[in-house]
Amino acid sequence: MKIGIIGGGQLGRMLALEGIPLGIEFTVLDPSDAPCAASVARHIKAPFDDVDALRTLLNDNDAVTFEFENVPAEVLQDIASSHLQPPVGALLTAQDRAREKNRFEEIGLPVAPWRAIDSQQDVDDAVAALGFPLIAKTRTLGYDGKGQRRLRSDTDALDLFASMGGVPLLIERLVPFDYEVSIVGTRSGNGELIVYPMTQNIHRNGILHRSQRIALNRELRRQAIHHLQNLADSLDYVGTLALECFVCDNLLLGNEFAPRVHNTGHWTLNGTHCSQFENHIRAVAGLPLGRSFNAQPAGMLNLIGTLPETALIASHSDTFLHAYGKAPREGRKLGHINVIGPDQKSVNQQLDALERALGLTAEA
Amino acid sequence: MKIGIIGGGQLGRMLALEGIPLGIEFTVLDPSDAPCAASVARHIKAPFDDVDALRTLLNDNDAVTFEFENVPAEVLQDIASSHLQPPVGALLTAQDRAREKNRFEEIGLPVAPWRAIDSQQDVDDAVAALGFPLIAKTRTLGYDGKGQRRLRSDTDALDLFASMGGVPLLIERLVPFDYEVSIVGTRSGNGELIVYPMTQNIHRNGILHRSQRIALNRELRRQAIHHLQNLADSLDYVGTLALECFVCDNLLLGNEFAPRVHNTGHWTLNGTHCSQFENHIRAVAGLPLGRSFNAQPAGMLNLIGTLPETALIASHSDTFLHAYGKAPREGRKLGHINVIGPDQKSVNQQLDALERALGLTAEA
Repeated sequence: MKIGIIGGGQLGRMLALEGIPLGIEFTVLDPSDAPCAASVARHIKAPFDDVDALRTLLNDNDAVTFEFENVPAEVLQDIASSHLQPPVGALLTAQDRAREKNRFEEIGLPVAPWRAIDSQQDVDDAVAALGFPLIAKTRTLGYDGKGQRRLRSDTDALDLFASMGGVPLLIERLVPFDYEVSIVGTRSGNGELIVYPMTQNIHRNGILHRSQRIALNRELRRQAIHHLQNLADSLDYVGTLALECFVCDNLLLGNEFAPRVHNTGHWTLNGTHCSQFENHIRAVAGLPLGRSFNAQPAGMLNLIGTLPETALIASHSDTFLHAYGKAPREGRKLGHINVIGPDQKSVNQQLDALERALGLTAEA
Repeated sequence: MKIGIIGGGQLGRMLALEGIPLGIEFTVLDPSDAPCAASVARHIKAPFDDVDALRTLLNDNDAVTFEFENVPAEVLQDIASSHLQPPVGALLTAQDRAREKNRFEEIGLPVAPWRAIDSQQDVDDAVAALGFPLIAKTRTLGYDGKGQRRLRSDTDALDLFASMGGVPLLIERLVPFDYEVSIVGTRSGNGELIVYPMTQNIHRNGILHRSQRIALNRELRRQAIHHLQNLADSLDYVGTLALECFVCDNLLLGNEFAPRVHNTGHWTLNGTHCSQFENHIRAVAGLPLGRSFNAQPAGMLNLIGTLPETALIASHSDTFLHAYGKAPREGRKLGHINVIGPDQKSVNQQLDALERALGLTAEA
C-alpha cells in the first residue's frame, strides 16, 4: 500500500516512521529542498497549491492525508477524491476560526463569547458587546500564537482591523480558566473512535512547551469524549484529531481543534501501545485501529530552537528523544522528549528535572 | 550522530526505524541491489568482505554494528576499531559452534554432550562416546536449521563427514527437553545489562515460527539472567544479544547465542517501552539504556514466504504488523505480527486465532 502525505515536516516524518512497519510506502509533497520526512519517504518537491503535483500524489497513492491544516483547502476541494482523509470539510472548518467556533456551538461545545470581524465597525461593535479583556485573531492561517493580539482597552482596539492587515478576524472574550487540556483521538472510516488519555498543556510565547497526562474528574472526562465524538462524527472524520479546551471550574470551553496528529499527542509514541501516528495511518489505510489500553503515566517537552546533546537528553533511562532531523533555528520545533514512569507524579518531577537540566525553566 | 550497519535486511531496517527518532542517520552495507533497510537508510552496495567498503563504513560513521553473525569476522578483525560494536570477539565466538560451546562451558552454562568433528574418525569416536540420537551441525555459517542432520543409527553416521562437505562439524547429543526458551538483553558500554522477559519459542523446519512470553519459575529465570550476564560480561559485549536454551526439568541447557538483535525479541517492539532495537542502538551509540519495565503480555508470529493481506493481519486491534518490504519467496521471512493483551492466556489464544486465520496451523 502507498500513502501520500501533503507536507514533509516532523509530523509527516513520524507518520511515516510509524506506518512503514505496516508495509506502507510513503511519499511526501513539500516545497522544501530537503524536508525532514524525506529521509524516510519519497519526496515530491512542489508548492502546496500545485494542482498537477497534488493530482499526481492522489493518483499514485492508495490514500492521501496531510500533516498540517494550512494546506489550501480550496485547491484540494476541486481535485480531492474520497481517498483524501481526513475529508476536505474538516480542513475547511479548521482553517477558519469562525467556522470552527460555529461548529463547536452546533455540537453543543460551549465557547467564550465571540464575534466574526470583517471591518473596524465590527471591532467596535464587538468591544461594546463583549467588554475587555479580548483577544483578536486572524481567522485563517494562524498557528503557534501567530496573528493574535490582546486587547485590554479602547486604545488597543483603535484601528485594529487595518493594523492586523484588513483580513477577516475573530474577536473573543479572554475568559479566566484553570488550565488548558487537550483530548486526542482517532476515528476510523466505520465511525469507531478511540480516545487517548487527556493532557494538560503549557504554552510559552504561544508555542506548546510541555504536555503531561492529567487525571480530570469523571464529569470533565465524559464531556471531553462526548465533544470529541460529536465533532468527529459531524465532520465524518477519518484519522487522528485533537481538541483543545479550557477548563473553567467544572466546564470545558472549546478553544480550537486540529484535523491532524497533534503536538499534545506526541507522548503516545512511548506512553501507549499504538500511537496517534500509527492510528492515523491505520484509519487512513482502512485498517482497524490499535487499542489505547494500558497507557503509561507520561509527559512531553518540546525542544525548540536548539537540540541539546543527545546524551544529556537520554541521561534518564525512561526518557525518549524524538529528533526531527531539522537544522537549528530560533523558534523552530526540532524535537521532543517523552517521559514515562510508574506514576504521573514522578513523570512530572522528571519533566521538571529535564527542564532544569536543559535550561528550559520558565525563568531561563 | 551516524551509525553504519553491516547488513541491510529486516534487522537493519528495524534498527534504523527505532534509531532515527534518536536523531541518528544510518548507512547499511549490503551486496543486494535494494536491501529492505535501504528505504530508511543510505545504502553502500558492496560484498560483506569488501575491505575498502568496510573501511569507508567505519571511517564515515561514529559507530558501526552488524545485523547478522555471518559477517566475515576475520576481515573485520583486521580493520575493526573500537567503534565496531558488539566486539569482533563475540562474532568469532558465535560463528563457530565449537567456540560457542566452549564459551558456554567456561561460564558454567551446561550444554548437551558434544564433540568437535574434523574427520570421519571423529564422527565414529563421537558416536561411540555419545550414543544415539545425535545431531550433526556445520560449525560455521549455519542458521535457521541449515547445515544440520539428525543421526539415529550407525547408518546415518556412515560417511557423514564427507557427505556434509568435509567441513568442520559439531556433533551433540539430542537431549529430551520440555521446551525451548530464549532470553534477550542489552549490555551497555559501562557493563549495565537490561534483560527482557523470557519467551518460549516454537520452530518449524528449523525456522522460528512463534514466540510467546512465558512465566518460568524463579529458579530458571535466575539461571537465565545469570548465564546471560556471564556470557555478555565474558565477551565484553556492547549491544543486544540473545541466548537460546532448552528447559530440562529445572535446568537450562545452553543451545546457542546470537550476537545481535534476535527474532525472539521482536515482540519487544510492541510489548515494551524500549525495544531490543532501540536499546541496541542506545548501547552502540553510548547512550543510557531504556528501561524494560511494565512489559506487556505479548507474543509474535513470523510471516514466512507470503505476506497475508494487511487487513486480515490487523483484524484484531491489539495486533501489530511489522512488514519488512521484501518480495515474497519460499522460506523467506517477510514480516511478523506482534500481539499484546491484558494477560498471557488471551495473547496465546489470539496467536492461535491468527494462526488459524492465516492458515499457519501446524496441520496446514
